[in-house]
Amino acid sequence: AIAKNQQSLVSDMLFRIRECNAPIPQNVMEFHVDGKRIGKVTPKVAKLLCSYSNTETKSPVFQTIASKEKYNTILTLTKEAGTTCQSRTKAIMSIMEQLRDDGHITGWRNELYPIAEGFYDEPLLLMERAATSFVGAIEYGVHINGLVRSSSSSENDDQSTTKMWMARRSKTKSKYPGMLDHIVAGGQPANMGLMENVIKECMEEAGVPTDVVKRGIKSVGAISYETFVVQQPTTNDDEGDDPRMVDGVISRVVLFCYDLELPSDFVPKVVDGEVESFFLWNMEEVMECIRKDYNDPMKPNCYPVVIDYLMRSGYVSPETVGYLDVLRELRSGDCC
Amino acid sequence: AIAKNQQSLVSDMLFRIRECNAPIPQNVMEFHVDGKRIGKVTPKVAKLLCSYSNTETKSPVFQTIASKEKYNTILTLTKEAGTTCQSRTKAIMSIMEQLRDDGHITGWRNELYPIAEGFYDEPLLLMERAATSFVGAIEYGVHINGLVRSSSSSENDDQSTTKMWMARRSKTKSKYPGMLDHIVAGGQPANMGLMENVIKECMEEAGVPTDVVKRGIKSVGAISYETFVVQQPTTNDDEGDDPRMVDGVISRVVLFCYDLELPSDFVPKVVDGEVESFFLWNMEEVMECIRKDYNDPMKPNCYPVVIDYLMRSGYVSPETVGYLDVLRELRSGDCC
Repeated sequence: AIAKNQQSLVSDMLFRIRECNAPIPQNVMEFHVDGKRIGKVTPKVAKLLCSYSNTETKSPVFQTIASKEKYNTILTLTKEAGTTCQSRTKAIMSIMEQLRDDGHITGWRNELYPIAEGFYDEPLLLMERAATSFVGAIEYGVHINGLVRSSSSSENDDQSTTKMWMARRSKTKSKYPGMLDHIVAGGQPANMGLMENVIKECMEEAGVPTDVVKRGIKSVGAISYETFVVQQPTTNDDEGDDPRMVDGVISRVVLFCYDLELPSDFVPKVVDGEVESFFLWNMEEVMECIRKDYNDPMKPNCYPVVIDYLMRSGYVSPETVGYLDVLRELRSGDCC
Repeated sequence: AIAKNQQSLVSDMLFRIRECNAPIPQNVMEFHVDGKRIGKVTPKVAKLLCSYSNTETKSPVFQTIASKEKYNTILTLTKEAGTTCQSRTKAIMSIMEQLRDDGHITGWRNELYPIAEGFYDEPLLLMERAATSFVGAIEYGVHINGLVRSSSSSENDDQSTTKMWMARRSKTKSKYPGMLDHIVAGGQPANMGLMENVIKECMEEAGVPTDVVKRGIKSVGAISYETFVVQQPTTNDDEGDDPRMVDGVISRVVLFCYDLELPSDFVPKVVDGEVESFFLWNMEEVMECIRKDYNDPMKPNCYPVVIDYLMRSGYVSPETVGYLDVLRELRSGDCC
């Protein structure tokens, strides 16, 4: 059945999608490696990156150059960074560690992410996960809708037969503590297949056994977003012209979406302490949580994945003004 | 279960999507009405449109003007066309009828389509369906995947439980005679809701009763494409500089996609003679038909709709090179 209040549902969906897509400044510079466009930075961030030198060699790793297309400056690497994945990884790591020590990069993970022009291309370098948005490189992840379907009903009506498992994030997490989340979601690290990652995360985050995952998992598409993340100044220095102060970074994300149909008697388990608790919502509760004034919202990037589920499962009538905008904006940025 | 031969499936999907998206010439001109961008034409088509006059008033209805943005010429309407939906509809109809009589517009339908900036906007004018692509305006339609699911199996495996009803188009149809088609598909006329149109087309094209439609229908999204359709010269005149000869038109289409779950004992009926026969395919046969060398292909614009179904139903692994390209290209053009 189609949800009630279509017009407010669609307008709330657009609100939630746009929360993940804060406008990018007009004057961003492309970041190229080996002639390939792999990121976007503001001129201030470019300047900051160029001001650091490799701690070993004492030479800069980043430089800005005039691009072949006129009137354009791009950020790229110096000869210092070499021409191999390994040499670039090492040179950039030295800069990123200093940026971390100086307070510009927070939430360091010690997880290496592959950086390439497209998801399927050979990585040009590996980069600490927390640093990828500092150069505006695309991050990839997997998000899983954990679904329970009552098989008793033979109705072709998702809303009356489906429930979705939700997670409450631990209050001790550095990012989005205590917020609602998908049953399982995670970043996509280097040297791991997507399904391998799904299986690992399902076990680590919710105690879902591998055979249950394999039986119930379905890849259903992807969503993407591109957003400007304003950086907080790390000092109380209120001089606007401090060259060490950056304005913000461009976070570009592609999330591969999965539906995981779980047996009705399965209950997720808190395994690694990242989650406080799990609970089962009916789809009316899921839609209620999209409302822009809902007082206990999900982690922002869960919304596009949930909205994608609702859009492809018959909850939204295409006669509703904004329907095509929702579809288009679920894949924002130039990444997907 | 995920389909076999993922890499060839994805590459065949891209082939089929790109068949619906032939590259548009670089020098196309925008067509504006009341300051709103509603179409795209080649300079040759613009010239042809401007060369005709309203048969009643003997004045041209189309003109090219310099746009506010420099170095750009756009096609727009003369004062002759007036400022109301009704006056524009009438003035443009006079030109289109002459283009039909001169052999430039074929397949006249006597069906009026609304022309607006976006699907949900008030129409700026109504235009004969066969003429919309002559000005590169977006056409909208509905396509329906007719599905039969075996409820006996409790597996979460679309491929082993799902079949799709296919239609064979009548050999007497002017377009794509004898080709495979969706069980139901149709253009979206003026003054009719999408669901109203779905119900009407289901009855007219396949004899699906309204209550069966209402019980089984689910809106699942939309696909779009934008393609250059080369126009055949209508005379044997081989002089290249004939001002009446056009190079081609830009066809821009948004198809709203629906899944219709049908009872296993329901059999579609040939009602209006547009279809020769219906038959039920398993999903392996559907995928086989996507192969670029398949000898009995579907009507080209059915493919994106079927591919969208496969993408959101777990048939394609996102680890397959090209997966993100398929997702992106399923919504091509600037329309959706």
